[in-house]
Amino acid sequence: MNQKINIGLFGYGVVGESLHHVLKHSKTVDAGVSKICVKQKDKKRSLAPNEFTFNKEDIINDRDINLVVELIDDADEAYDIVKRCLQNKKSVVSGNKKMLAHHLEELIQLQKETNTSLLYDASACGSIPIIRNIEEYYDNDLLKSVTGILNGSSNYILSKIFNEGLDYQTALKQAQDLGFAESNPSLDVDGFDSLYKLIIIATHALGTFVPPDKVLNYGISNLQEADIQFAKEKNYKIKLVAQLIKLDDESFTMFVIPRLVRPGKYIYNVEDEYNGVVIQGEYYDKQFMFGKGAGGYPTGSAVLSDITARSHNYKYEYKKQKYFKRLEYRTDHEIEIYLRYKDIVDFSYFEFDSISEKHSGLENNYVVGKIKLSNLLKLRTVLPRLDVFLAYIRN
Amino acid sequence: MNQKINIGLFGYGVVGESLHHVLKHSKTVDAGVSKICVKQKDKKRSLAPNEFTFNKEDIINDRDINLVVELIDDADEAYDIVKRCLQNKKSVVSGNKKMLAHHLEELIQLQKETNTSLLYDASACGSIPIIRNIEEYYDNDLLKSVTGILNGSSNYILSKIFNEGLDYQTALKQAQDLGFAESNPSLDVDGFDSLYKLIIIATHALGTFVPPDKVLNYGISNLQEADIQFAKEKNYKIKLVAQLIKLDDESFTMFVIPRLVRPGKYIYNVEDEYNGVVIQGEYYDKQFMFGKGAGGYPTGSAVLSDITARSHNYKYEYKKQKYFKRLEYRTDHEIEIYLRYKDIVDFSYFEFDSISEKHSGLENNYVVGKIKLSNLLKLRTVLPRLDVFLAYIRN
Repeated sequence: MNQKINIGLFGYGVVGESLHHVLKHSKTVDAGVSKICVKQKDKKRSLAPNEFTFNKEDIINDRDINLVVELIDDADEAYDIVKRCLQNKKSVVSGNKKMLAHHLEELIQLQKETNTSLLYDASACGSIPIIRNIEEYYDNDLLKSVTGILNGSSNYILSKIFNEGLDYQTALKQAQDLGFAESNPSLDVDGFDSLYKLIIIATHALGTFVPPDKVLNYGISNLQEADIQFAKEKNYKIKLVAQLIKLDDESFTMFVIPRLVRPGKYIYNVEDEYNGVVIQGEYYDKQFMFGKGAGGYPTGSAVLSDITARSHNYKYEYKKQKYFKRLEYRTDHEIEIYLRYKDIVDFSYFEFDSISEKHSGLENNYVVGKIKLSNLLKLRTVLPRLDVFLAYIRN
Repeated sequence: MNQKINIGLFGYGVVGESLHHVLKHSKTVDAGVSKICVKQKDKKRSLAPNEFTFNKEDIINDRDINLVVELIDDADEAYDIVKRCLQNKKSVVSGNKKMLAHHLEELIQLQKETNTSLLYDASACGSIPIIRNIEEYYDNDLLKSVTGILNGSSNYILSKIFNEGLDYQTALKQAQDLGFAESNPSLDVDGFDSLYKLIIIATHALGTFVPPDKVLNYGISNLQEADIQFAKEKNYKIKLVAQLIKLDDESFTMFVIPRLVRPGKYIYNVEDEYNGVVIQGEYYDKQFMFGKGAGGYPTGSAVLSDITARSHNYKYEYKKQKYFKRLEYRTDHEIEIYLRYKDIVDFSYFEFDSISEKHSGLENNYVVGKIKLSNLLKLRTVLPRLDVFLAYIRN
């Protein structure tokens, strides 16, 4: 153990409050919260008013605070806070995947220049230590792919649909009532949250940072009864899966697309708000890590692990950026998909390389075929407006 | 990256040879094998004879060798090698669980005195980075239990019995033919291998080293058709499970006993030569890690991770030994077991605290009841000779 950690905490929502509780009940962690910065002045909170400040400068400029923990929702504000803290030589623990996915390259550079440390294992997969493992343990060039269910809300919805027969809207409503999904659920169900986590994972897994707008994320909000029917008849479950695939020694691809998953696959049994990640490597075969991907306490404990890591002066080395020939991100990779459509006009948007199965029905049609990822990426803004649903089958 | 690593390798069996291969094919790892020490002079090997030596002093005293990788079977010889290398200021990577389980306390002390590093993630659960995660990520006092299938051979046998209906002897023979079990399988099937791994895990999980002869290991070699029948009728599978349980803020217990496992449990689906470990904590709930627990390549890649960790000067900090009040190991813990017996004389050895179920049959009888772990520990040497089988149900 080195120095006592005085934390300046930004945000006192579910995770912030859980962290505060966990810190109080962990007898061996020599860290305490000095100040908490929150936005809303009139909200009732579980701590005395004098523990809070509404002015971020009170933390950014406090010399006694040697670690800033950033747990707010607003990605732009979080970026400003993290950047200014690092510039002020304060190390930071952050859980903001959106902010990280957009600014990670710059923040890696800033850490180097200021000799500070930015840790964010809590930003991907809640309590599963995925970033730390990819950074420290799979720190060689044997890694071949990472496949994961990275978003608890959409997985909860899909579990209710496939295990309890709910329709999409009812399942979504239930997830919202339980606090698993936001009132605007697009971040979760359209795969943005998974995408941000995938961007962060790729930076550690292969050393290459790719801006989020270059990567396809397609979610489950267009899922209909016909798609559920198709999956069930063929003994699949549909899961929203993020994938990173090393294509050869020079390149890789990645994407977030719903996937038709067979019972034998590890991720098949990942249900409800859980996350599960399969790491595949050249010689170690497959590793599977599984745990709670969301919720105040699981995420709060992940933040705690980052805090104690700082007490041992831990920092990410971004090892693969240092001694790897950086892999190139490619989208000309061909994948096999299932595409359900009503109208031939919608179908005409898709340039399939080949089609292996075609089905016409009274209400819906579908094809199974191979298409380049770049073709889907081109359609990104159009996709949500088309009356279609697509899911990855295999590559 | 720091210095180039020159490895002195002890042992060129399945794991040693796999490691050699993996090292050659990993382009980013700046480490090479300088010398290999083997025992048998006349064995045909895949490398030129001048790569080998038969004299261990050639490695122990070679100043150019800055990392020793010890992958031999003989625990006593391994202890001598590891100890002398550390004394000679050489860091060591070892996969020898038996040696570690017996000498870890002394070797931790020796590392401190000589400022060297001994890494051994490959010694427990092959490719699953269990030790590194317990040491680095779960480095606080929130850990409540570790439950795991730590031995691939016995798990392979049990999978064949429960999934394919083989009897114990046929399944054992098959495991031996496939190289999963030794010709003397006692190390695996009687739970010694799991015990050694549990001892190592406990040292990192809670900070307390307990000598192996103080901990109960009871295996599956007395498993009979009646037990399989009992389990199947009640919708259990039998798994050989190692468990470590924190009892309160001051104490913990641990043991290796076959366990009747229900379908909902994570370890229920761990089949064949795979290993799976559930880490449970106060706030993060359950984490599950799963992967290949044996085999040349999976273990070889685990050794590789330890080697690259050394290239970043990594060492275990044994954090919990430093800032934990060391937990006391207790065996007065009461557990619920199933006990099958033929003869009432055998049964009389067991002092149950209470019995909740009793069954008498023509050929076999069984009881389900609560018994103190210390009572079983007392019977340790007698147990294998009794015509009984016992399995943990719950605590």
